[in-house]
Amino acid sequence: MKRRLRMGMVGGGQGAMIGQVHRLAAQMTGRFELTAGSFSSNRQKSYDSGKELELPVERVYGTYREMLKKEARLPEDQHLDFVAIVAPNNMHYPISMAALDAGFNILCERPMTTTLDEALNLRRKLREKKLRFCLTTTGTGFPMLLEARELLRQGRVGEVRKAVIECPQGWMATRLETAGNRQAGWRTDPRRAGPSGCLADAGAHGVDLLRFVTGLQIVQVCADARACIPGRQLEDDGSVMMRLSNGAHALLWASHICVGETQGLTLRIYGDKGAVVWSMARPEQLLVHAVNSHSQLYRAGDTGLSEPAGKTCWLPGGLPEGYLEALANIYRDFADDLDLAAAGKPIPAQLPYPTIDDGARSVAFVDAVVRNLKPENTEKWTGVETVD
Amino acid sequence: MKRRLRMGMVGGGQGAMIGQVHRLAAQMTGRFELTAGSFSSNRQKSYDSGKELELPVERVYGTYREMLKKEARLPEDQHLDFVAIVAPNNMHYPISMAALDAGFNILCERPMTTTLDEALNLRRKLREKKLRFCLTTTGTGFPMLLEARELLRQGRVGEVRKAVIECPQGWMATRLETAGNRQAGWRTDPRRAGPSGCLADAGAHGVDLLRFVTGLQIVQVCADARACIPGRQLEDDGSVMMRLSNGAHALLWASHICVGETQGLTLRIYGDKGAVVWSMARPEQLLVHAVNSHSQLYRAGDTGLSEPAGKTCWLPGGLPEGYLEALANIYRDFADDLDLAAAGKPIPAQLPYPTIDDGARSVAFVDAVVRNLKPENTEKWTGVETVD
Amino acid sequence: MKRRLRMGMVGGGQGAMIGQVHRLAAQMTGRFELTAGSFSSNRQKSYDSGKELELPVERVYGTYREMLKKEARLPEDQHLDFVAIVAPNNMHYPISMAALDAGFNILCERPMTTTLDEALNLRRKLREKKLRFCLTTTGTGFPMLLEARELLRQGRVGEVRKAVIECPQGWMATRLETAGNRQAGWRTDPRRAGPSGCLADAGAHGVDLLRFVTGLQIVQVCADARACIPGRQLEDDGSVMMRLSNGAHALLWASHICVGETQGLTLRIYGDKGAVVWSMARPEQLLVHAVNSHSQLYRAGDTGLSEPAGKTCWLPGGLPEGYLEALANIYRDFADDLDLAAAGKPIPAQLPYPTIDDGARSVAFVDAVVRNLKPENTEKWTGVETVD
Amino acid sequence: MKRRLRMGMVGGGQGAMIGQVHRLAAQMTGRFELTAGSFSSNRQKSYDSGKELELPVERVYGTYREMLKKEARLPEDQHLDFVAIVAPNNMHYPISMAALDAGFNILCERPMTTTLDEALNLRRKLREKKLRFCLTTTGTGFPMLLEARELLRQGRVGEVRKAVIECPQGWMATRLETAGNRQAGWRTDPRRAGPSGCLADAGAHGVDLLRFVTGLQIVQVCADARACIPGRQLEDDGSVMMRLSNGAHALLWASHICVGETQGLTLRIYGDKGAVVWSMARPEQLLVHAVNSHSQLYRAGDTGLSEPAGKTCWLPGGLPEGYLEALANIYRDFADDLDLAAAGKPIPAQLPYPTIDDGARSVAFVDAVVRNLKPENTEKWTGVETVD
Repeated sequence: MKRRLRMGMVGGGQGAMIGQVHRLAAQMTGRFELTAGSFSSNRQKSYDSGKELELPVERVYGTYREMLKKEARLPEDQHLDFVAIVAPNNMHYPISMAALDAGFNILCERPMTTTLDEALNLRRKLREKKLRFCLTTTGTGFPMLLEARELLRQGRVGEVRKAVIECPQGWMATRLETAGNRQAGWRTDPRRAGPSGCLADAGAHGVDLLRFVTGLQIVQVCADARACIPGRQLEDDGSVMMRLSNGAHALLWASHICVGETQGLTLRIYGDKGAVVWSMARPEQLLVHAVNSHSQLYRAGDTGLSEPAGKTCWLPGGLPEGYLEALANIYRDFADDLDLAAAGKPIPAQLPYPTIDDGARSVAFVDAVVRNLKPENTEKWTGVETVD
Repeated sequence: MKRRLRMGMVGGGQGAMIGQVHRLAAQMTGRFELTAGSFSSNRQKSYDSGKELELPVERVYGTYREMLKKEARLPEDQHLDFVAIVAPNNMHYPISMAALDAGFNILCERPMTTTLDEALNLRRKLREKKLRFCLTTTGTGFPMLLEARELLRQGRVGEVRKAVIECPQGWMATRLETAGNRQAGWRTDPRRAGPSGCLADAGAHGVDLLRFVTGLQIVQVCADARACIPGRQLEDDGSVMMRLSNGAHALLWASHICVGETQGLTLRIYGDKGAVVWSMARPEQLLVHAVNSHSQLYRAGDTGLSEPAGKTCWLPGGLPEGYLEALANIYRDFADDLDLAAAGKPIPAQLPYPTIDDGARSVAFVDAVVRNLKPENTEKWTGVETVD
Repeated sequence: MKRRLRMGMVGGGQGAMIGQVHRLAAQMTGRFELTAGSFSSNRQKSYDSGKELELPVERVYGTYREMLKKEARLPEDQHLDFVAIVAPNNMHYPISMAALDAGFNILCERPMTTTLDEALNLRRKLREKKLRFCLTTTGTGFPMLLEARELLRQGRVGEVRKAVIECPQGWMATRLETAGNRQAGWRTDPRRAGPSGCLADAGAHGVDLLRFVTGLQIVQVCADARACIPGRQLEDDGSVMMRLSNGAHALLWASHICVGETQGLTLRIYGDKGAVVWSMARPEQLLVHAVNSHSQLYRAGDTGLSEPAGKTCWLPGGLPEGYLEALANIYRDFADDLDLAAAGKPIPAQLPYPTIDDGARSVAFVDAVVRNLKPENTEKWTGVETVD
Repeated sequence: MKRRLRMGMVGGGQGAMIGQVHRLAAQMTGRFELTAGSFSSNRQKSYDSGKELELPVERVYGTYREMLKKEARLPEDQHLDFVAIVAPNNMHYPISMAALDAGFNILCERPMTTTLDEALNLRRKLREKKLRFCLTTTGTGFPMLLEARELLRQGRVGEVRKAVIECPQGWMATRLETAGNRQAGWRTDPRRAGPSGCLADAGAHGVDLLRFVTGLQIVQVCADARACIPGRQLEDDGSVMMRLSNGAHALLWASHICVGETQGLTLRIYGDKGAVVWSMARPEQLLVHAVNSHSQLYRAGDTGLSEPAGKTCWLPGGLPEGYLEALANIYRDFADDLDLAAAGKPIPAQLPYPTIDDGARSVAFVDAVVRNLKPENTEKWTGVETVD
């Protein structure tokens, strides 16, 4: 019987959707127990949340610093295996740095940080500390996206020529942030969300998936964006043209104001031999095109799927799965990784979940987009900082 | 802080898909803990399963009778709140009867029993014992199916005229049962599955949903079916024409041999004012038609959904959810019900999850279909026994 | 330069949708000219229609008998090559018989006749007269349905096990026939439409396509149907379970009252090796399933389509085509056939368009359904008369 | 009885797809007759084509200049009503100018010209000559696109904020132009196609539709594009970010190398009140979104469609229509216009089909894209010349 891994959570208190999503996903794996938490920057709210989550009172903290300090001193049989960071974007960096200093492994929601300097600092510190870091880019946990990645590795798409990423959402088409909507509140506030809105939120998630599936890097960007809602400080609609490390072109459009759009994320990758198309709206499908052949429809549960796709399916083919299952797949991978680390065993070179490098590349992409969009910039193309 | 409800499981040992599905769904709600189990008719397998599930050895049993006997004697603070029955179909009845005799509430996979006599006996006993019974007809836990039910209640469809239920599956298009496939094994074995194959499995599930959404009963059936695979004993393909209690006609087709079909269940209900169409292949959508109007596309996360649909969504609109989330919704409803019962409070007249009456009606439907299909029967229509 | 074939039309006057559809389709082929016509049972309306269609006044007739009589006497260089019958259903038989007696080839809208006796009589007479007969079962002119037929011939589906035909329409969900709607008027009038409503109209069309694609015959039927609208004399909703000549089962549902349904006709054919699914809602696609393989999406314009599919596409892949193009394909085939006949050349054994035998089988199917549905009938299955 | 309008065609000889498409569309309306033609720059081919098309030999010409000269001298009762230009792109300008000089109305395939100077010259000359000019931007003939335009006029979308145009095609993913493919041949040849490839071909067609539906103009562009196939001279893949006259942003991506893509054109328009989404892959549908409401699915044949949508449907709802029907709608509009002109009646201010101004704006868009893409250009945004 495997010991459940002890999870300490920072952020995700009452009313925070993402905290609940992470707890559910962790719970689904059966590999974790929520052991401690600092659930809010509001001390009372943190305590209330901990109580609701049935944590012992001594493992609930008023601040993350207090949590890290006290938890670090606990004996090995009570020691947290990792800290899960689901606080607002701007807090990812200071919490991560402090957690590493306190000796904890980290699982962190994306974006990893809100500036490139932070991302690179964090990456440096992680290397020093030889701890584990998992970025929860949830899309990477969907079986058919993993199948797409395998098909590219097998050469079924050939050399990538063009990719298109669509991330349309419509829920912020009106000014929700001044109407008391919490989610809209932090997403439109540069102090909490960072320097970019929809492009860093849904958009960079999509670009992360493009990198994940193809292994290609983003080299240059040329963007357009604006806040459509008067008074909104961060862009709620934008497009980015990209050039990739192999010379391919790519295109991203992301939006928070596309009325009626909910099924956010579609990824299309076209090569000289074939193409793959995947959408979060129908996550169980993968459309596979090939030059001079009829197109194929791969589906979760099909015989002959690759091992990564097969093992991340929770249910038999035809029974729908969703976002929680995908996030739980990442948690499970991280659990395997922590178990290996605890056993002193080497970690596979290519982790299935996004790494600190992936996180830094994602931040570098947003950084380049933000520079390209600056009003004083007149140059068409802006280079993306290399992370390697 | 609410006490977690103690669940004892019968069936669902190693290798049994459905047991794992139920444990995951229960776990997702955060309202239950798996406390005891008799996981297999094979004693050793039951113990191994219990160990894997990290149960204390004294709460794992070699037979369900032993479990019920010993658990019934435990003091109140250890006493099981209910027994979850995920054993093969033919065992649902004896286990349920024994569980009621031992004083336990029950959550049971469908079909409730394999004969109508059993169903009616069980119903009588439940009434005597004044215990709770929940049938996990998973489709009833999908938010947009609940929305469909509300729309019918509001009169948006008007008087129902016609319904069509499609349950095509293709995974048993070859003779898997002799190739070691466990799932195919029990589903094609009349001793374990009961007297009907695909019509009782996927098919009756679909018919249950029709009754759930419309509140109408099935009055008469006329069926055709056969085993397409030589040597298979239960039908793997069939159709049923139905007449409903309001005079409407309905049609079911279900199959295990429709090559390429995975996204099993579609429900179409047409009335004199409008229509609703829902499919498990796109569970987040509900297509709503109206006479002389443009059709509407309702989606999970839309503003203005009914309260039952809204409260069963786990995530914001656009993030896909699936079968586990739907089953977890039923578990959560059952938890509420058990809490009310424990508090001596009355249970709402119309339970959100299917009741013992629903279960009996489902068995009565299969019973009529089986009679209609008997080779010696030449009459077109067979009446369905009334359960009320 | 090929001579244009001279077409005489019976029926299809002002306000009749189907006449205009036939004229457009014929025109699209560039192979026909409308030369004469008797466009309505109302003499004045026939003349008005002919004038609107720019026919010389001497080639427009007040009755079809007059037309046949006078046209039959014209010299060869003015002689009609065929008569196109688009009159109400009940007139197909007398007009066809008279046309054959007058020595004319025939193109006729379906249903061929409204009784089986008529169908068999007509078939006998056609054989005596050695003239050509083309039934316009429009579905047979869609390229991807022809592709489906070729795949079955190649064995890609294997032995057919099950077929499902869906023909839902919703436009007659209210009592249009008493509100002045012409189309609804004749379709609900047994004197003009014949003894069956939606099952003979959309339904038998679907069954014709099943026979066309598989080459199998319908052996037995068991049906349920009713008129949902009070006062309507012909069924506006119905289902038919069928047994096919190879032992396979099939299912049809057809309706005029399924609110919101427009995209009528879907055909699903499942065999022991694979399956094909085609729908008139997306006529350019054919979904092809295979046991233990990923499904394939065939599309008009794909490289590697069969010759029958390829040559019936009017435009490059991706440019949508529709019903007129499909009907024009049948007209073109008929033109080829008439040219061969005129040249005294033999006609290919298997004509691409439906023949008199197909027409008779379609009527035999409806005949069996009507007998099965008679209130006094209590037997489940009714045999379909063999036509061979 | 209306006189058929006499059409003289330039281009579109044997083997040219577009010529046949135009002749079919014209024929479908029943308003035109092909009277004369100069079908190829190859004299013999022009004669052969004319013969095949059954034109009298004296109305077939070896060059367009000869045709215009001789046809201009014919008496009024033989005089061409207009010239239809379906020659290669680079010839649209000289033929149009000569046709105007010869006193003929014009219907011309898009693009109107290959340079902006040509477009403006042609526009000036048309004004002088007071003749009619119709640009066949075929998308404008689809009923549900016309419905979209009406919804925008009624304010259902509100102020446009964002538009996305997708024009992916995959048929040129390999080097067809050196393999004898005629279509690929001229499309990749700058001398015949003009200075732009997929962006001017499919792409500008999509942008034309955006302008048609919204009435907004393109003010600035920022593009990226390349030829993916070595040796290809014109871009076969590209993206354009746009800024519209009301401040909205728009995005276009077009490609000839997106393997597996056939259903080219999708148009998405998002405003502050709602949104519309239309795709040529499902031309009979229009998805209509609204803030805080369920989305609606408009379909051809629905009751309550606008007059422009209703009158351009050829068949009852549910029977598929396609590209030919759309083009025929434009031909019919042009016939109405020519009839009005012939009767000396005023032409409605806003013609339903695209005008010379629309054609010039389309060329101005391509002109700005080509300038933006020049290697020596480093500025992000390039202004589009105003045409008003």
